[in-house]
Amino acid sequence: MAGISKTEANGTAARAAAEAVDQERLWRRLMTLAKIGATPRGGVNRQALTAEDAEARRLMVEWGEALGLTPLTDAIGNLYLRRDGSDPEAAPVMTGSHLDSQPLGGKFDGAYGVMAGLEALEAMNVAGTETRRPIELVAWTNEEGGRFQPGVMGSGVFAGEMALADLLPITDREGVSVGTALGAFLAATPAVPTRESGFPVAAYIEAHIEQGPLLEAVGKPIGVVESVQGLRWYAIEVRGEAAHAGTTPRRHRKDALKAAVAMVSALEEAMADDADTVRFTVGRFEVEPGSPNTVPNRVLFTIDFRHPDQATIDRLTDRIEPLCQANARGCAVTVTRTSNEPPTLFDPEVVATVERWRQALALDGMAMTSGAGHDAMVMARHCPSGMIFVPCEKGVSHNEVEAATPSDLAAGARVLTAALVDLASR
Amino acid sequence: MAGISKTEANGTAARAAAEAVDQERLWRRLMTLAKIGATPRGGVNRQALTAEDAEARRLMVEWGEALGLTPLTDAIGNLYLRRDGSDPEAAPVMTGSHLDSQPLGGKFDGAYGVMAGLEALEAMNVAGTETRRPIELVAWTNEEGGRFQPGVMGSGVFAGEMALADLLPITDREGVSVGTALGAFLAATPAVPTRESGFPVAAYIEAHIEQGPLLEAVGKPIGVVESVQGLRWYAIEVRGEAAHAGTTPRRHRKDALKAAVAMVSALEEAMADDADTVRFTVGRFEVEPGSPNTVPNRVLFTIDFRHPDQATIDRLTDRIEPLCQANARGCAVTVTRTSNEPPTLFDPEVVATVERWRQALALDGMAMTSGAGHDAMVMARHCPSGMIFVPCEKGVSHNEVEAATPSDLAAGARVLTAALVDLASR
Repeated sequence: MAGISKTEANGTAARAAAEAVDQERLWRRLMTLAKIGATPRGGVNRQALTAEDAEARRLMVEWGEALGLTPLTDAIGNLYLRRDGSDPEAAPVMTGSHLDSQPLGGKFDGAYGVMAGLEALEAMNVAGTETRRPIELVAWTNEEGGRFQPGVMGSGVFAGEMALADLLPITDREGVSVGTALGAFLAATPAVPTRESGFPVAAYIEAHIEQGPLLEAVGKPIGVVESVQGLRWYAIEVRGEAAHAGTTPRRHRKDALKAAVAMVSALEEAMADDADTVRFTVGRFEVEPGSPNTVPNRVLFTIDFRHPDQATIDRLTDRIEPLCQANARGCAVTVTRTSNEPPTLFDPEVVATVERWRQALALDGMAMTSGAGHDAMVMARHCPSGMIFVPCEKGVSHNEVEAATPSDLAAGARVLTAALVDLASR
Repeated sequence: MAGISKTEANGTAARAAAEAVDQERLWRRLMTLAKIGATPRGGVNRQALTAEDAEARRLMVEWGEALGLTPLTDAIGNLYLRRDGSDPEAAPVMTGSHLDSQPLGGKFDGAYGVMAGLEALEAMNVAGTETRRPIELVAWTNEEGGRFQPGVMGSGVFAGEMALADLLPITDREGVSVGTALGAFLAATPAVPTRESGFPVAAYIEAHIEQGPLLEAVGKPIGVVESVQGLRWYAIEVRGEAAHAGTTPRRHRKDALKAAVAMVSALEEAMADDADTVRFTVGRFEVEPGSPNTVPNRVLFTIDFRHPDQATIDRLTDRIEPLCQANARGCAVTVTRTSNEPPTLFDPEVVATVERWRQALALDGMAMTSGAGHDAMVMARHCPSGMIFVPCEKGVSHNEVEAATPSDLAAGARVLTAALVDLASR
């Protein structure tokens, strides 16, 4: 970027657009979207590339077209809604997030970033904002990675970090491939033209609920995100031998479950830090054949490991494979690293733009590190990027009870709107 | 029973029938049956009340009718094939086992007992055997308990130990109820008349592969089963709180998986006996939501506990709930006992009849205790009962590689045939 523009005209336009953000309209759209895949306990089950995800996609196209935006897609199913700028040759400024959810997720994770972006574009329409650069809203495919691993597939392909051909054969637990599910997903919006992904982007900003307890604790509505902690994912496969639970002596067993339990216990102890900074999670743990009176012959479990510091990540994750092998108890163990995200530093100018508009709009806030990974983490390696956080209740996320207040959500959308107009006017 | 008959006529008829057992025919039927639900690695997936189980049922009815047997069923779906005796009022002698398998089970578990019974009845036809009592072959519904818990449902209802109304609402992992699955199962053989179950039975003998290593180790084809070790099943539900894996500090987590892992570790340590007589198995361990980047909010795991001695069963299983509670780590824990089978002693006269015919047919064998539970264990509380074991390779069962030799299987069927004719002639 060629330095931050500070012309009064741009500032006035950005402020006018931000002031046109309509809290009620944003909230209404979020609640409408939350009906797609709604769970009985108030959450959302809208996993990537499911029928529910496709229904959300159709709704987005409908909303976008009603605002005069141009829908576009690409081969991995990212959905773009484009608002033209005065210079058709200029690289766009982008905003967005994802519409897919965890299996038992909440109404705001991902959905908020997309709806805040849509609200920003509608606010620009209402305010009559004109920008030099186009502004594009994007809904990235499969951010969560709950159904198909790894996550951040859409932004990963966009940024050139994942190859589509490698992703298509990946299957979910029922054996359905990304390729099959993606075909059905794209077929849900047949009229949307396809483009190449990976085009130049002037800047990317993503709004998101914090998914942690910090903003709520200090009572501030805006987090200006400067960095994202590093993440590594592992899949551990333990292969033992099925046997009858009633007749097989302990000394003859190769019990994949008891070996996996010993591994998780040993890993948990090794990862426990006094500062409670290490994030170590076993989220999936699948047992075969899964019958009460059969000694399990196979367990597949996952590790999600995160830390802000690369040296600590290296030191601790180097212990994973040896600790698994040491607790194998006669079973065969395979440890596979399935994701590797180094700690991310966001672009100083994008961060500064967000911070300047937070102050200009007189919204309280603070600088912070993201504990969660996001598409913005991937985009940061493609173009100048940043994020805006808003508080969520008790920091709870990836949970049906995930909650956020209409006013905090609107505050985040206002900062987003102003920052987008500012960046797109340069 | 009114004492063991030793008339020469009965002995001659029993021996003639036993000698008409056809090893090849028995093997052929077992291999034909094993095609229903066959798995790529040579095993069988024919879980209770599935389409595969229904197909096996249709085949049984077809085979039975070809032998002039009368098919009958009851409300829980047990299938009977009746060979009339000369006294239509006499209580029948029964034999049988089950056609359902573990999710990744073998060709012989259960299937052998039913096919051995069918071979016995065909051998009687070939030998022109007449008996005073009817002889009935039964295929009990859901012995395994892999899909619907508890197991031994068919014999449990027959013996009056389970109420049909309690079983019908039980669901499998996909939410399909026993009632729904049973309706489809019964509809597969609409012409088979329904009878009341629980009628008087003169004696019940079940042939089965040992599912343990003892007979193979001593090179003997016949196990004369005198008893079955006691069994208790438990379902443990751990309820924590779903949270984001990247943002939630350890001290704020209520991680259902890590609590369940701590429980299994503590239980395993408590149950480890030097003599290796205790059987303690965690065969099912289900995690919700099961996403790599979400702290699990719920784990359901099962315990299968067995021991030959009731006092030891009481002493060790009394520790299960306290050890689970002590490792709950802030989660809510519910421990439910789902099965309770005291150690079983089989009827001395039935056992003696099996032993006498083993000797009379000059087959090597030994007295033994069953490590596995069987329908015969339930039937032993309804009528005089016993079992005949044959070796299986390396003692492996509940496994796709489960194997047994044609000659051992035929040897067991010969003892069964003679014992049935003997008992049915009294």
